[in-house]
Amino acid sequence: MRDVLVLKITGKAFDEGSTLISRYVKLLKSMVSEYRLIVITGGGNTARKYISDARSLGISSNYWLDLIGIWVSRLNSLLITSSLQPYAYPKPAVSLEEVLEALSSHRVVAMGGLIPGQSTASTAIEVVEAVGAEKLYYFSAVGYAYDRDPAKYPDAKPLREVNASLLKKILEQKQLPGEYALIDEKALDLAIRSKILVQLISYREPEKLLDALRGENPGSLIHPA
Amino acid sequence: MRDVLVLKITGKAFDEGSTLISRYVKLLKSMVSEYRLIVITGGGNTARKYISDARSLGISSNYWLDLIGIWVSRLNSLLITSSLQPYAYPKPAVSLEEVLEALSSHRVVAMGGLIPGQSTASTAIEVVEAVGAEKLYYFSAVGYAYDRDPAKYPDAKPLREVNASLLKKILEQKQLPGEYALIDEKALDLAIRSKILVQLISYREPEKLLDALRGENPGSLIHPA
Amino acid sequence: MRDVLVLKITGKAFDEGSTLISRYVKLLKSMVSEYRLIVITGGGNTARKYISDARSLGISSNYWLDLIGIWVSRLNSLLITSSLQPYAYPKPAVSLEEVLEALSSHRVVAMGGLIPGQSTASTAIEVVEAVGAEKLYYFSAVGYAYDRDPAKYPDAKPLREVNASLLKKILEQKQLPGEYALIDEKALDLAIRSKILVQLISYREPEKLLDALRGENPGSLIHPA
Amino acid sequence: MRDVLVLKITGKAFDEGSTLISRYVKLLKSMVSEYRLIVITGGGNTARKYISDARSLGISSNYWLDLIGIWVSRLNSLLITSSLQPYAYPKPAVSLEEVLEALSSHRVVAMGGLIPGQSTASTAIEVVEAVGAEKLYYFSAVGYAYDRDPAKYPDAKPLREVNASLLKKILEQKQLPGEYALIDEKALDLAIRSKILVQLISYREPEKLLDALRGENPGSLIHPA
Amino acid sequence: MRDVLVLKITGKAFDEGSTLISRYVKLLKSMVSEYRLIVITGGGNTARKYISDARSLGISSNYWLDLIGIWVSRLNSLLITSSLQPYAYPKPAVSLEEVLEALSSHRVVAMGGLIPGQSTASTAIEVVEAVGAEKLYYFSAVGYAYDRDPAKYPDAKPLREVNASLLKKILEQKQLPGEYALIDEKALDLAIRSKILVQLISYREPEKLLDALRGENPGSLIHPA
Amino acid sequence: MRDVLVLKITGKAFDEGSTLISRYVKLLKSMVSEYRLIVITGGGNTARKYISDARSLGISSNYWLDLIGIWVSRLNSLLITSSLQPYAYPKPAVSLEEVLEALSSHRVVAMGGLIPGQSTASTAIEVVEAVGAEKLYYFSAVGYAYDRDPAKYPDAKPLREVNASLLKKILEQKQLPGEYALIDEKALDLAIRSKILVQLISYREPEKLLDALRGENPGSLIHPA
Ligand SMILES: Nc1ncnc2c1ncn2[C@@H]1O[C@H](COP(=O)(O)OP(=O)(O)OP(=O)(O)O)[C@@H](O)[C@H]1O
Ligand SMILES: Nc1ncnc2c1ncn2[C@@H]1O[C@H](COP(=O)(O)OP(=O)(O)OP(=O)(O)O)[C@@H](O)[C@H]1O
Ligand SMILES: Nc1ncnc2c1ncn2[C@@H]1O[C@H](COP(=O)(O)OP(=O)(O)OP(=O)(O)O)[C@@H](O)[C@H]1O
Ligand SMILES: Nc1ncnc2c1ncn2[C@@H]1O[C@H](COP(=O)(O)OP(=O)(O)OP(=O)(O)O)[C@@H](O)[C@H]1O
Ligand SMILES: Nc1ncnc2c1ncn2[C@@H]1O[C@H](COP(=O)(O)OP(=O)(O)OP(=O)(O)O)[C@@H](O)[C@H]1O
Ligand SMILES: [Co+2]
Ligand SMILES: [Co+2]
Ligand SMILES: [Co+2]
Ligand SMILES: [Co+2]
Ligand SMILES: [Co+2]
Ligand SMILES: [Co+2]
Ligand SMILES: [Mg+2]
Ligand SMILES: [Mg+2]
Repeated sequence: MRDVLVLKITGKAFDEGSTLISRYVKLLKSMVSEYRLIVITGGGNTARKYISDARSLGISSNYWLDLIGIWVSRLNSLLITSSLQPYAYPKPAVSLEEVLEALSSHRVVAMGGLIPGQSTASTAIEVVEAVGAEKLYYFSAVGYAYDRDPAKYPDAKPLREVNASLLKKILEQKQLPGEYALIDEKALDLAIRSKILVQLISYREPEKLLDALRGENPGSLIHPA
Repeated sequence: MRDVLVLKITGKAFDEGSTLISRYVKLLKSMVSEYRLIVITGGGNTARKYISDARSLGISSNYWLDLIGIWVSRLNSLLITSSLQPYAYPKPAVSLEEVLEALSSHRVVAMGGLIPGQSTASTAIEVVEAVGAEKLYYFSAVGYAYDRDPAKYPDAKPLREVNASLLKKILEQKQLPGEYALIDEKALDLAIRSKILVQLISYREPEKLLDALRGENPGSLIHPA
Repeated sequence: MRDVLVLKITGKAFDEGSTLISRYVKLLKSMVSEYRLIVITGGGNTARKYISDARSLGISSNYWLDLIGIWVSRLNSLLITSSLQPYAYPKPAVSLEEVLEALSSHRVVAMGGLIPGQSTASTAIEVVEAVGAEKLYYFSAVGYAYDRDPAKYPDAKPLREVNASLLKKILEQKQLPGEYALIDEKALDLAIRSKILVQLISYREPEKLLDALRGENPGSLIHPA
Repeated sequence: MRDVLVLKITGKAFDEGSTLISRYVKLLKSMVSEYRLIVITGGGNTARKYISDARSLGISSNYWLDLIGIWVSRLNSLLITSSLQPYAYPKPAVSLEEVLEALSSHRVVAMGGLIPGQSTASTAIEVVEAVGAEKLYYFSAVGYAYDRDPAKYPDAKPLREVNASLLKKILEQKQLPGEYALIDEKALDLAIRSKILVQLISYREPEKLLDALRGENPGSLIHPA
Repeated sequence: MRDVLVLKITGKAFDEGSTLISRYVKLLKSMVSEYRLIVITGGGNTARKYISDARSLGISSNYWLDLIGIWVSRLNSLLITSSLQPYAYPKPAVSLEEVLEALSSHRVVAMGGLIPGQSTASTAIEVVEAVGAEKLYYFSAVGYAYDRDPAKYPDAKPLREVNASLLKKILEQKQLPGEYALIDEKALDLAIRSKILVQLISYREPEKLLDALRGENPGSLIHPA
Repeated sequence: MRDVLVLKITGKAFDEGSTLISRYVKLLKSMVSEYRLIVITGGGNTARKYISDARSLGISSNYWLDLIGIWVSRLNSLLITSSLQPYAYPKPAVSLEEVLEALSSHRVVAMGGLIPGQSTASTAIEVVEAVGAEKLYYFSAVGYAYDRDPAKYPDAKPLREVNASLLKKILEQKQLPGEYALIDEKALDLAIRSKILVQLISYREPEKLLDALRGENPGSLIHPA
C-alpha cells in the first residue's frame, strides 16, 4: 500500500479550540486525492480531566482509567472524521482488522486508542505495521526528540536523527493512564522489529508534513535500530 | 421487570468535577442490591464545547454535530460504569436491544444517546418503554417544570404536577445539537402513548430519588395525559 | 454526496403482489449507474397483521409492537435488495452508521425502520441528514399533502406546496405502532432543522420520480419552514 | 444441559391469526420456570407469499429466496419472543454460537432459520446438537410420519415409530425455498450422527408436549438409526 | 457477477509445508487483476489432529468437533489471506452475508467452514449460489470422481463427466467431523437445485485451473442433474 | 471480583496430544463451582509451524505473522472451551470488553492472544487488570524464572522470588512472532503499574495450582516492583 500515510496527532492539538485543528483539516483535505490517510489522535487535556475526575471518584483500576482516555481519543478523532466527509470512514476504527477493512473503501480512517495498557503511540506503530507502510508521521507536543526531557531541562538538545534503541534509554517512561511519554518503549520496540521510521514533527506546524513528504526532516527522525 | 429503575441524569452533573457525581455513585451503590438500574447520561458542557469546535471547523450537518454530542454523553456514562464495577455492564449500550440484553445479566447499565436527531430525554423514555417500566426519574438542571422558561423569566412558577400535553405547549422547543430543551415533544409524545410518568428531580440533589421511591414528589411529576 | 438519492416507499406498495414493486425495481435499475440510491421501505398490511396478531397475544408494549413492524419493513426492503443484485448492499441497514458505511462501496442500500418509537418517515429524514442530501422522495399512499385528512373529508384539497410547520398543524398525529400518519411531527421537525425538502409522490406512480428529477413537482413539495 | 428443551414449530402455526399461537405461548409460559426453552419457528404462508412475490420480481437465486424465507421465520419467532418477556432473549438468534451464548442468561431463546440452503428442520437438529440435548420436539403440519405423503395418498398410514434411515427413503425430498418437506435428508443425517430422537407432534395440539415429557408418544417418534 | 471465481481447496494442500501452497498463491496473484476470487479452504491433517485430541479429551459432541475443524479451516485460509495482501479481505468470512459484503470492495475473499454440521464442500456450493456464479472449481485430494472409492479399490475408474445424482449413489457418505467424503449429498443436492457445475481438479496441480478456464476439463466435471 | 482466577497456559502444553491437557481440564472442572476462571492459551508448535510456513510463502509482515499465531492460540483455547461445557463461554474472547461481558454470565472464559504486537503474556496481565484480580497463574515451559536463560545455560539458577524490574534486565527479549520470551517487558511493566503478582508454575504440573491457592509458591513468584 504505497499511497497510505499514517499520522499520529498528539491530543494537545485538540486542547485549544478549532484553530489548530482546522489547519490539520485543511492539510488533510488537500492530500486526500493523492493519499489514503490514517489518523490516530491522542486524548489531550480532556482525557487528563476525565481521568482525574475518575480518580476522584475512587477508580484506581488502570484498565478503566485507560479506557476513559481511549474514549476521549476517539471523540477527538470524530472531529477529523466529520470534517473529512464524505471521504472518511464514518466511525472511529476500534481494531486493526477494522482499519484494514475500512481502508479498502475509504480515503481516510480516523481513530483513537485501541486497547488499555498501551499508548496511542504504540497503536500508531501497530497500524503502520498492519497496513505495510514504512513510516509514521508523528505530530508531538515537542517536535523533536531531545537528549533529556525538555520539560524538565531547559538546556536539553534536540536530536535530529536518533536510533530507537538509544531513545528508549533516554526517555523516562511512565505507563500511567494519561501520562504516556513522548513515545513508549513498546512503540519503539515494535518500530525496531518491523523497521519502521518515525518522523517527529511539531504539532503546531502540521504543514511541515509536506516538507517531510519531499524528503526533508522537519523535526527528528527516529531510526529503527 | 418490577425492580428496574430508569434514571436520566443531565449532562450538567458532569460539568463540575467529581463532587456531584460521587454523590450519584454513592446513591446508586446503595441501591444496586435492591434494584436493577439503567442510567442515561447527557452531554453537558463538554458536549457543547466539542459541538462548538466542530461548528468552527465548518461542520454544519446536524447528523455529525449530534453524533459528537452522543459520544460525549457515552463518555460521561463511562464514569458511572467504571464506578459501579463489577455490577455494571462494561460498555455504554448503543441500542435498545443491547439494553435489554445487558439487563439480563447485569445490575447496572449506563449509556448516553442512541441516535442523531433525538435528545437523551427521548432516549430515556424509549428505554423505559423497552424494559416495561412505568416511570422515568429525571435529574434535570432545573428540578421542576415551570410555567415559563425559568432561565428567561425569574418569576416563572414551578408546576408540581403537570400533564405532558400541557407541558408540550409551554416548552419552547429547540431541536439543535447540544440545545435540546428540558424535555422535547417527542419524549412527551412517547410518554403519553406508553403511559409513562416522568418524575423531575433537581440534579443537585440525587438523594431525593429515595423520597420519590417512598411515594413523595420531590420535584415535578409529569403525567402521561 | 451530490449523486445520492434517498427514497421512502410506503409499505402499501408491498401489499398488492409484485406488479407495483416490479415497476419500482425497473425504475431503480435504470437509475443505478447515474445515482447512488437509498431506499427506505414501510411495513404495510403485513406489518398491521403481525402487530394485530401480537396484540391478540396480549402484547401491549409499544416497544415490541413497533419492533415487529420494523422487522416487516426490513423484510419488504429485502425484496428491493434481492432485485437489485449485485448493486445492493446485501442486508437491511440497521443503523445510520451502517448506511454511511454501506454507501461507500454499494450503489444501492435498502432498509426498513431503525428504532422503536419513530416512524419510517423520521428514519428517512435522518438518512437524508446523515448522507448530506437535500431532499427526500417520498412515495406515499396519498401522493399529496391535503388541507384535511382526505380519508375523512372527500372535499379535502391537495396542497402542491406547503410549509412543514403548517403541515404539522394540519396532520392529526397518531404515534401508535402500525399507525403513524402521513409524516409525523418529528420527521417534519428534523426536516426543518436540517433544511430538507420533502417531495411527495403517489406510490402508484413510481416513474414520476423522473419528473421530479427534472425539476417538476409531481405531487406535493414540503418546504422546511 | 439437562433442563433444555428444543422445539420446532411449523410456520403453519402462524398462518391462522393468534388463536393457535396463544396456546403455544400459554404452554411455554407454564414451562419457563422448569425448563430452558429454545423455539425454532418456520415461515408458513407469509414466507411462501414473499418468496412467490420475489419470483415474480424475477429473482431466481435460491440464496435470495431462501434468505427471504429465513427473515419471515425470524419475524414469526418475534411473536414468541415478545410474548415471553422478560424471559426471552430479546432478538432472533442468528447463529449457533449466539444460541449458546443467549442460553447462558435467558430462559427462552426464539429463532428462525440460520443459513440459506438448509431447512428450519436441519437448523433445529443443529441446535439440539449444539446444546447437547437428546431430543427435538417437532410440531409439524401432519403430526405423524406416514408411509407415503399423506397430502397425496389419503390411505397413507402413520408410523408411530420409524427409523430415520427408513424415513429418508420414504420422503420425496424437495430442496426449494419455501418447500422443504416434513424433514429433510440433511436433518435426518444429522440426527443419526448425533443420536438425536425426533418427536413429531401435531402442530394443532401443542399441549401434547406435556404428554411427551411424561414419556408418552403423542405422534411419531423418529429414531436415529 | 461474471468475473467472480469460486475455488475450494482441500485441507490436504496445507499438510505439506509451503511448497504446494506457494503455487496456489502464485496462481491466484496472477489472476487477481482479471477475476475476483473466493477461496474456501479445508482443514486437512491439522483439523484431524485437533479433532482427535478433542475426542481424547472426552468431547463427543459433533457440534464442538466440527467447530474445531472449522477453526482450523479458517486458520488455513489466513495463509491465503496474508499472502494476497492488500487484495484480500483481511479476515476469514464467517457468513454468506459477509462474503457478499466483502466482495464489494475486495478482489479476494478467503474463508473456511461456516457452520457445524456441514462440510466445506457444501459451504463452497452455498457461496457459489450466493454470489450468483455458475461453477465451483474444486481442488480435491483425488482429482477425479471415481466409480468407487479409489482409496479402497485400486481399480476404481475415473469418471470424466458424471451427474450429481449418480455420484450421490456412488459415494459412501460419512458425516463425521474431519471425515466428510469427496463431496457430500447436501452439496450435490444444492448444486442440483441451483444448476451449479463442479469442476474437480487434482489439488497437486493448481495450475490446471487455467486449462479449466480455457474450457478444458482437467479432472472430472459434475453436472447438476 | 474475588473469586476470579486468571491462568495463562503456555502453548507447549498443547504440543503433546491430549494427556497433559486432560489434566488441566480435570483440574479446571474441579474448581469451576468455587471459582470463575479465565484461561489464556499460547500457540505452541502449531503456531510456530504455521508462522514458519507463512514465512516460506513470503509473508514478512509481523502483523500477519502475529495474527496467524493468535488464531492458533484461539484454536488451542477451543479445546478448553469445549471440554468445559456448559460452563464455558462458547467462543474465544477477542477483546477485553468481551472478557468482562462474558464473565458476567459464565464460569469459564478461554481465549488466545488479542492483538498483533504483543505476547499472550501481556494479554494475560491485561486481563488480570481488567477484571480487577491481583495475581496471574502462569504455566510456563520452564516453571521458574532463572538468573539466565536456562535453555542456553545449564547452570542457570532458579529464582524463587524476583522483582519484575530485575527480571526485565535478565530476560533477553525477542519480539518476533512465535518467539516471545518467558514474559516480555511490556507484560512486566503492566504488572508493575497495576501491582499484579505473577506466579510461575511448571506447565507439566498443573495440579500445583492448588498448592499456590493454599499460599505456597510452587515455582517462582514475580513481584510487581
Ligand atoms: N527526551 C525527550 N524528548 C522529547 N520529549 C520528551 C522527552 N522526555 C520526555 N518528554 C515528554 O514527552 C511529551 C510528549 O508529548 P505528546 O503530547 O506529544 O505525547 P502524547 O502523550 O502522545 O500526547 P497525548 O496523549 O495527549 O496525545 C512531552 O510532555 C515531553 O516533555
Ligand atoms: N418551562 C420550562 N421548565 C423547565 N425548564 C425549562 C422550561 N423551558 C425551558 N427550560 C430549560 O430546559 C433546560 C433543562 O436543562 P437540562 O440540563 O436538564 O436538560 P438537558 O438538555 O437534557 O441537559 P444535557 O443535554 O446537558 O444532558 C434548562 O436550561 C431550562 O432553562
Ligand atoms: N411421508 C410423509 N409423512 C408426513 N408428511 C409428509 C410426507 N411426505 C410429504 N409430507 C409433507 O410434509 C409437510 C410437513 O409440513 P410442515 O409444515 O410440518 O413442514 P415445514 O416445511 O417445516 O413448514 P414451514 O416451512 O411452513 O415451517 C406436509 O405438507 C406433508 O404433506
Ligand atoms: N467415488 C469416489 N471418488 C473420489 N473420491 C472418493 C470416492 N469415494 C470416496 N472418496 C474419498 O473422498 C476423499 C476426497 O478427499 P478431499 O481431501 O478432497 O476432501 P475434503 O474432505 O474436502 O478434505 P479436507 O476436509 O481436508 O479439506 C478421498 O479421501 C477419497 O478417497
Ligand atoms: N531467565 C529466564 N528464565 C526462564 N525462562 C527463560 C529465561 N530466559 C529465556 N527463557 C525462555 O523463555 C521460554 C518460556 O517458554 P514458554 O513456553 O513458557 O513461553 P511462551 O512463549 O509464552 O509459550 P507459547 O507462546 O508457546 O505459549 C523458554 O523457552 C525459556 O528458555
Ligand atoms: Co472492505
Ligand atoms: Co442476555
Ligand atoms: Co466503507
Ligand atoms: Co453468556
Ligand atoms: Co460493501
Ligand atoms: Co453480560
Ligand atoms: Mg440539553
Ligand atoms: Mg513463547
